[in-house]
Amino acid sequence: MHTDKGTIETGPNLLDGVSLPAAAVFEPALAHNLAWMQAFADAHGARFAPHGKTTMTPALFKRQLEAGAWGITLATAPQCRAAFAHGIRRLLMANQLIGEPNMAIIAELIAQGGEVYCVVDSAANVEHLGRYFAARGLRLRVLIELGVAGGRCGCRDLEQVLALAEGIHRQPALALAGLEGYEGVVSVDGSEPAAAIRAYGRRMVEAAQALEEAGLIEAETALITASGSAWYDLIAKVFHEASLGARFVPVLRPGCYVVHDHGLYREAQIGVLKRQPTLKQGLLPALEVFAQVQSLPEPGLAVVAMGKRDIGADRMPEPLRRYREGGPGAPALSVAGWEVVKLMDQHAFVRLPADADADGSDGDEVRIGDIVAFGASHPCLTFDKWRRVCRVDAALNVIEDMPTCF
Amino acid sequence: MHTDKGTIETGPNLLDGVSLPAAAVFEPALAHNLAWMQAFADAHGARFAPHGKTTMTPALFKRQLEAGAWGITLATAPQCRAAFAHGIRRLLMANQLIGEPNMAIIAELIAQGGEVYCVVDSAANVEHLGRYFAARGLRLRVLIELGVAGGRCGCRDLEQVLALAEGIHRQPALALAGLEGYEGVVSVDGSEPAAAIRAYGRRMVEAAQALEEAGLIEAETALITASGSAWYDLIAKVFHEASLGARFVPVLRPGCYVVHDHGLYREAQIGVLKRQPTLKQGLLPALEVFAQVQSLPEPGLAVVAMGKRDIGADRMPEPLRRYREGGPGAPALSVAGWEVVKLMDQHAFVRLPADADADGSDGDEVRIGDIVAFGASHPCLTFDKWRRVCRVDAALNVIEDMPTCF
Repeated sequence: MHTDKGTIETGPNLLDGVSLPAAAVFEPALAHNLAWMQAFADAHGARFAPHGKTTMTPALFKRQLEAGAWGITLATAPQCRAAFAHGIRRLLMANQLIGEPNMAIIAELIAQGGEVYCVVDSAANVEHLGRYFAARGLRLRVLIELGVAGGRCGCRDLEQVLALAEGIHRQPALALAGLEGYEGVVSVDGSEPAAAIRAYGRRMVEAAQALEEAGLIEAETALITASGSAWYDLIAKVFHEASLGARFVPVLRPGCYVVHDHGLYREAQIGVLKRQPTLKQGLLPALEVFAQVQSLPEPGLAVVAMGKRDIGADRMPEPLRRYREGGPGAPALSVAGWEVVKLMDQHAFVRLPADADADGSDGDEVRIGDIVAFGASHPCLTFDKWRRVCRVDAALNVIEDMPTCF
Repeated sequence: MHTDKGTIETGPNLLDGVSLPAAAVFEPALAHNLAWMQAFADAHGARFAPHGKTTMTPALFKRQLEAGAWGITLATAPQCRAAFAHGIRRLLMANQLIGEPNMAIIAELIAQGGEVYCVVDSAANVEHLGRYFAARGLRLRVLIELGVAGGRCGCRDLEQVLALAEGIHRQPALALAGLEGYEGVVSVDGSEPAAAIRAYGRRMVEAAQALEEAGLIEAETALITASGSAWYDLIAKVFHEASLGARFVPVLRPGCYVVHDHGLYREAQIGVLKRQPTLKQGLLPALEVFAQVQSLPEPGLAVVAMGKRDIGADRMPEPLRRYREGGPGAPALSVAGWEVVKLMDQHAFVRLPADADADGSDGDEVRIGDIVAFGASHPCLTFDKWRRVCRVDAALNVIEDMPTCF
């Protein structure tokens, strides 16, 4: 017996037999995005290791590898274990590996043949990892993280990077495999955000070259890796145009691209397409949450059975379309002027335009049970609300029930 | 193989073998809260049906029933199914039952012997439910929801309540089992919030009496139910002191009390204890998230491996204590002056007081790998981040690995 919310064991179509609310990934947009970003990485001479933390959906990891990805990026040791359990063998943990129970998880994956990279930015962590993996006769690939002042993790300057590299060389159980960064934490408050991102990319290139010149890079092919889903085009270009020689291979890591979004990343994409005019069509939003009107308690207000436990709340969800329940195949109705004004744990308050709830002669007045499709900003915080997400075609037929492994 | 985050299969103690971050429920505070709220309900002549949506943790439902609860309240049909699958037979769905796939879930529970109540506030929904359950030869218990103007769901006045009751009587498959409300959506912006809550409780009592006088209550013992975790004392008192006769039994439904919190509900409790001076000790916070310092990249900043995917973010989490890793039994270290200033998906930015990261002679300087216990506001949005939560004793020994069923 399924006991999670939104199980879809009974429904051939989102509008027929599926317990709502439910999260849906649209196949046409998904297929487009998978091919689009892989082609982008290929065109920039980069390997692609999409960030899997966005979806934690093994069925999507598989699609990403089939589309040409080199590996999957993850944020934590348990996430790496979950991906490995579903067949992913090359794992880039773009984070520090802290705590012996987490080290034990990664050690087990390496012992089973996993090619695992993780990130370091402190001598203390390097010593701990060196001791831990040496005691088990294993070798861990590490990337030095280069951060920015006022940012998140990472060495703050080249001097720290070189000192850490020497510390890594004193640990036989660690292999220095390259350099890692994340431009998403660069402050872009100024008038030239793109310039700040490019400057960070160039600092990464300089640090990579300094490591190479100092003879500190051990791997035959070292990695230089950065990029989230907002500025990946600038990072890709800086890495592509740099004189990195044969030793450094760029690895790009955006994750949200796979389903894109209806908020933050839709806006970021406007910047990408403006900066890169050769890119014709961009990414398409592929993730929606379907939920039903449960109450129309007073004029101008619809309460929808969907809350913070069902959809990301970094911004208010955006009503996209509406359907009558029980009527697959019927045309979508308008939600023009509908606005989510409040989100509780299990409820959304939707302000309706005048007359939306009047019993008009055009027959599209809102009714109890109406099914509303919502878009959200920041897909990571919608995926993690679900134990299963359904993949649907353009007609809302359910193609696949995709478990997540958060 | 476990593939979720925070699995705790290897650790006898939170500081020894448990992959962090992890969420922990402290047994002493849990036991106190379970007994405290049950005694409170008993003392007010009320049945207790704690809201299970807070934790969705069957092991905690079991504890609530063992402590004397009459049933478990839930918010959705899949939540009811999950609770039923773990042995809960009396389910109060404090929400409208919308959508035939959700009706099918509830029908199945009733067919299997479940005693299920749900809430109605519209003629359209009453007709749909009546038709659906009649076609299956089943009978559904419904409670009429009384709301407030500008609030969430629910009838807005007594006239609507009575009209809806008559509509329910026209549906042989529905049994009108009482009245439901939620005082948490009453506007308390004014200078007399308690007065507004009391007035709402009295409106509920009046509506119940009106239903009774009109001969519209069918059940031998009807329910009058309200109360979240902030104003339950006022609701309990109004119901207790009302002349409800033998027909109406009050049912209280707070859910967050079971682990209480370090924010919103801690503050709400100050009000409860002030209003009810006979209550000596109040509820105790029982839920914490343990996570490790992963980076100390610049003076005054610690980056902790815990983010919006691990802990509720309605407010910033509160650092409570700190431990050295690998040292169960060692005394906790101070986090005085530590402040979470930013939360990303998988990272917390903690601002440290001056000298917290200096290599001082007192030996309590912050180190990479230090384990920090955090408290949060609003436990519902911390529980739903986890597939398993561990129950620990005061010495952080893991007593039980408790799966959640979100």
